[in-house]
Amino acid sequence: MVAAPASLDTLCINSIRMLAVDAINKSKSGHPGLPMGCAPMGYALWDKFLKHNPKNPKWFNRDRFVLSAGHGCMLLYALLHLTGYDSVSIDDIKQFRQWGSKTPGHPETFETPGVEVTTGPLGAGISNAVGLAIAESHLAAKFNKPGATLVDHYTYVVMGDGCNQEGIASEACSLAGHLKLGKLIAFYDDNHITIDGRTDVSFTEDVLKRYEAYGWHVQHVADGNTDVDAIAKAIEAAKAVTDKPSIIKVTTTIGYGSPNKGDTAGVHGAPLGEDETVLTRQQLGWEYGPFEVPQEAYDQFRQAIERGASLEAEWNQTLATYRTQFPAEAAEFERMLRGELPEGWDKDLPTAGPDEKGLATRKHSQICLGALGPNLPELIGGSADLTHSNYTDIKGETGSYQPETPEKRYLHFGVREHAMAAILNGIAYHDSGLIPYGGTFLVFADYMRGSMRLSALSELGVIYVLTHDSIGVGEDGPTHQPIETIPSLRAMPGMLVFRPGDANETSGAYKLAIQNRKRPSALCLSRQGMANQANSSIDKVAKGGYVLEDCDGTPELILIGTGTELDLCVQAAKQLTEAGKKVRVVSMPCVELFDEQSDAYKEKVLPNAVRKRMVVEAAESFGWHRFIGLDGDSVTMNRFGASAPGGTCLKEFGFTVENLVAKASALLA
Amino acid sequence: MVAAPASLDTLCINSIRMLAVDAINKSKSGHPGLPMGCAPMGYALWDKFLKHNPKNPKWFNRDRFVLSAGHGCMLLYALLHLTGYDSVSIDDIKQFRQWGSKTPGHPETFETPGVEVTTGPLGAGISNAVGLAIAESHLAAKFNKPGATLVDHYTYVVMGDGCNQEGIASEACSLAGHLKLGKLIAFYDDNHITIDGRTDVSFTEDVLKRYEAYGWHVQHVADGNTDVDAIAKAIEAAKAVTDKPSIIKVTTTIGYGSPNKGDTAGVHGAPLGEDETVLTRQQLGWEYGPFEVPQEAYDQFRQAIERGASLEAEWNQTLATYRTQFPAEAAEFERMLRGELPEGWDKDLPTAGPDEKGLATRKHSQICLGALGPNLPELIGGSADLTHSNYTDIKGETGSYQPETPEKRYLHFGVREHAMAAILNGIAYHDSGLIPYGGTFLVFADYMRGSMRLSALSELGVIYVLTHDSIGVGEDGPTHQPIETIPSLRAMPGMLVFRPGDANETSGAYKLAIQNRKRPSALCLSRQGMANQANSSIDKVAKGGYVLEDCDGTPELILIGTGTELDLCVQAAKQLTEAGKKVRVVSMPCVELFDEQSDAYKEKVLPNAVRKRMVVEAAESFGWHRFIGLDGDSVTMNRFGASAPGGTCLKEFGFTVENLVAKASALLA
Repeated sequence: MVAAPASLDTLCINSIRMLAVDAINKSKSGHPGLPMGCAPMGYALWDKFLKHNPKNPKWFNRDRFVLSAGHGCMLLYALLHLTGYDSVSIDDIKQFRQWGSKTPGHPETFETPGVEVTTGPLGAGISNAVGLAIAESHLAAKFNKPGATLVDHYTYVVMGDGCNQEGIASEACSLAGHLKLGKLIAFYDDNHITIDGRTDVSFTEDVLKRYEAYGWHVQHVADGNTDVDAIAKAIEAAKAVTDKPSIIKVTTTIGYGSPNKGDTAGVHGAPLGEDETVLTRQQLGWEYGPFEVPQEAYDQFRQAIERGASLEAEWNQTLATYRTQFPAEAAEFERMLRGELPEGWDKDLPTAGPDEKGLATRKHSQICLGALGPNLPELIGGSADLTHSNYTDIKGETGSYQPETPEKRYLHFGVREHAMAAILNGIAYHDSGLIPYGGTFLVFADYMRGSMRLSALSELGVIYVLTHDSIGVGEDGPTHQPIETIPSLRAMPGMLVFRPGDANETSGAYKLAIQNRKRPSALCLSRQGMANQANSSIDKVAKGGYVLEDCDGTPELILIGTGTELDLCVQAAKQLTEAGKKVRVVSMPCVELFDEQSDAYKEKVLPNAVRKRMVVEAAESFGWHRFIGLDGDSVTMNRFGASAPGGTCLKEFGFTVENLVAKASALLA
Repeated sequence: MVAAPASLDTLCINSIRMLAVDAINKSKSGHPGLPMGCAPMGYALWDKFLKHNPKNPKWFNRDRFVLSAGHGCMLLYALLHLTGYDSVSIDDIKQFRQWGSKTPGHPETFETPGVEVTTGPLGAGISNAVGLAIAESHLAAKFNKPGATLVDHYTYVVMGDGCNQEGIASEACSLAGHLKLGKLIAFYDDNHITIDGRTDVSFTEDVLKRYEAYGWHVQHVADGNTDVDAIAKAIEAAKAVTDKPSIIKVTTTIGYGSPNKGDTAGVHGAPLGEDETVLTRQQLGWEYGPFEVPQEAYDQFRQAIERGASLEAEWNQTLATYRTQFPAEAAEFERMLRGELPEGWDKDLPTAGPDEKGLATRKHSQICLGALGPNLPELIGGSADLTHSNYTDIKGETGSYQPETPEKRYLHFGVREHAMAAILNGIAYHDSGLIPYGGTFLVFADYMRGSMRLSALSELGVIYVLTHDSIGVGEDGPTHQPIETIPSLRAMPGMLVFRPGDANETSGAYKLAIQNRKRPSALCLSRQGMANQANSSIDKVAKGGYVLEDCDGTPELILIGTGTELDLCVQAAKQLTEAGKKVRVVSMPCVELFDEQSDAYKEKVLPNAVRKRMVVEAAESFGWHRFIGLDGDSVTMNRFGASAPGGTCLKEFGFTVENLVAKASALLA
């Protein structure tokens, strides 16, 4: 039996709707409203436009699809299942939101092949999509040759009212407009409902006008519930505009098909329930049982498999030709896709002998970026408008990634920290070997913490360059002086927090940050200068913590220092040693890596029997007691700072050799 | 000598410019660009419009002025000094950015009377201003009577390109448009320069069109460097529009007057230096020495003193009349201004006897809000679109704060967490006794952390209602399950983090949160139910931690629990006791308050000699070692969670009585 085209569309669309309804009923939890409302746009896009290969979800040149409104994940799982992804079987759908399933309550890249981006925190997905589109355009500019187009795909997004209210999305979309990302196409599911009820209780702005102000191409589809043709035409029109990102406002009914709950907040985040499901089946004319998909719908959707195979085969042919014509470029491209670092990428990372004066670690960081840049073409990044404070430039390179120069790799994010982090995540999600980094003041990690958490959760090797890392910031005062920021980052599972104590440790931190492609790194770097140590090295940083200076035999006291306070420990130890004390200095540039060492190594560095331990760090002591215990002490910063020259702040708040010696002596007494 | 009006204007404007130049030169640090460019708008506003009383900076009915671009603080300090505030003498200006001065590197309310809002983190100030305007309109609706206008002032803001790029500002300004805050007037200092250079490297959107999309009234002053009349006319026009907030884009030259550094990023954040200052004096025709203000300028500016005195006197007369006509309302108004809580405000906070089943603490929270609401009219708050998840409604009340109903006190913030926090701060900055609270999921505290930090720094008693506080969230999965969020908040100086363990502790947490008008509180509340304890009480929460269940004599083991894990401790202790162990259970609903108790009290609860201690909390262990030391253990959550029913998550991750007993027994072995 072949259905007429119109009813086949409807059958396919209702297959999405009812899989969502059934899965959410079964799990007794979930968000049916969005998949029911967005099924037509999902169908139109995935059936008629999306370039992908269900049997190889990682095929490089696929279009990227981001469900920014991640709570509507059953839309995505239904599409993955219906178009034939092995990762989402009908049994997986029946296991929606259950322990160990492939269909968690929000899309998670690390659980489900075919999910491009972990979403749920609103506004993040559309912002990641800006990063995906930047990655595409950068690689296209870098690798494509006349007649040999290796990189060429769209980034599609479905966002809702929530995403459009979040500031992160405003930041990212303003930048996307500036960057003229013509291959970014977003659907705005305009359903007038959020959890608190109708959007008009708080959200009455003219969304499309705002996007026009950003420089986007805007369209409106008035009937997103049934008008598949209008959606398809809008996608075509969006693709035709190549110098602007596009937003298509699609007016829909949340929970379309549910006679009593549709168009209400009640269908946003709760199962329809048995009775309403019966009525919904009636209203949609759906004659199939729970989790039953009509064969005609499968047949239609799964044409994607053959289409995808042939798209990939065609691309493989292009790559093969490219290999012969441009062997060096092809080798670099394929190396990047394999996620391999180039030979000798770290060979120019600087080392330094002892030096009392030294430099600020933000300067060492700049030197490292300059040393890595030429050897690591996949390094791409910038700053949230603090280039000349963060020193995030790659020395020797000029120009930045702009609409006319997408081959450049320096990114001016503007004063948009949260979008920066999300865009860096997006570049990492592109999974094409690019190594994204971005800078701001450490204290403003708070502005982007939501996305830093997603870097950690989604295992994205983003490098955060966070300068001005303590009260050493000085005159800018407490709004700009991080106190609790370092501990708050250390509390985050997966995040590597480095606070290097000199030139060698900065190089070591960069080496580890680059190597860790599955963990984000936060480099906490000083504004002010510090000495280079005699016994530091690049390699020692890999242990997280190590003995920098030692006494003969078992120490009476262990001083643990990081960053700018490391040299204070060394100097205090010298004075204490002269006074006949047996003192060890442990440098701890990365607490997480130290924690992950063997018990034997940790015992060697911090013997359990030595309980007189003192940590010195110009930050909150919070978190340090797992090393100093109940019997240790600390010279830390347990209040907000003050506006004054940095040296004055440090002195007034007790970061002096004298104070360290006094406190250490008291501890030993 | 009386100068002609035009040149008097110029003299006044250049007085601002040169005070900024001189102070920043002297301190060798600061941001001269903004004050030099914005001096005309500062002068126009403060000399011709701003309603304030320099001799009583706290006069209630003053206009509020917010320098959202806080780095330009010398603009504000100059205006405070020139108009006669005692808080900023010429000597204070000479002490710019020095230890202990009244003129820190960014404006800080707690340092300088006359500073309304602590600014520096970009975008926050304009968002606080939305809160100030909400507070004004709410109190006006509540207290003003025909013929007796007690509350009637404008909120003025100066924001720059940076503020306009920040997402927090987008969120807040979208909401301000929806709320039709007609008495909010923002100047946008359009100077085309940020730290990375010309704004066109990243910021080319049409800002005014965006504000139009938000529903604002928009204007443009083309020559903000000299055209004081145009600025004044724009302010008049903005005041005439009463049903929309207004933005006035004022095109200026950053560092106006500096021949070589003006209109460059070089003047944004660095002193002009000696040579350029000489040239700037020449260019501006400035014949005065460093820190010298011509008497004519003082005379003009300080008319504000007399004006202010008479404005306040007039208002005092209004208040006196109001007192006689509306004694009850006047008493409430004046009580609020004194910051006193009403008699019996806490009398209905519920207590509960033991109950194995209990409720979720988010439900207890709802009950508390319902119990406080009628007795505490100054309570005002809402949710970032999670009303029916956070249970932030005040039971028995209907309707919300909307343009037509500003007398209502429930705020629909939309999906705008960061703006919510900033608006709550703004309501607190209004300093009129209002007690602001706002809800979202605990995990999304990350989205608003920048403003939570400012609550803590600026000593604002904002109450954050943060529900869904652990993996107990369940199906929504790791993007929605806080792990590190609680420790990250505990690391913040000043913040009170409550995680109540039952009904009594929830009431206790609310009592303390309301009482602490100088410290913000974060209430971490569960999605799932928990038992009510036999030995908890409202008052015990004030100690932060206390002995909930005890053994005879010195315990062998101390179990420390919070929130949903408290009852697990009690049950485990019961089993361990039955097995002959001597076990104490300590409830620790607020770590910060416990830390602040006397050493004697702390020793009583956690005797130093008892080193077998185990903490149980479904969050990162980070920070707990200062109680469990090197010899304790923990049942905590040191990885991201998973999507599954909440009970399954808790069980799989070890939050069971069995696991507690096993780990405790191992610790005791």
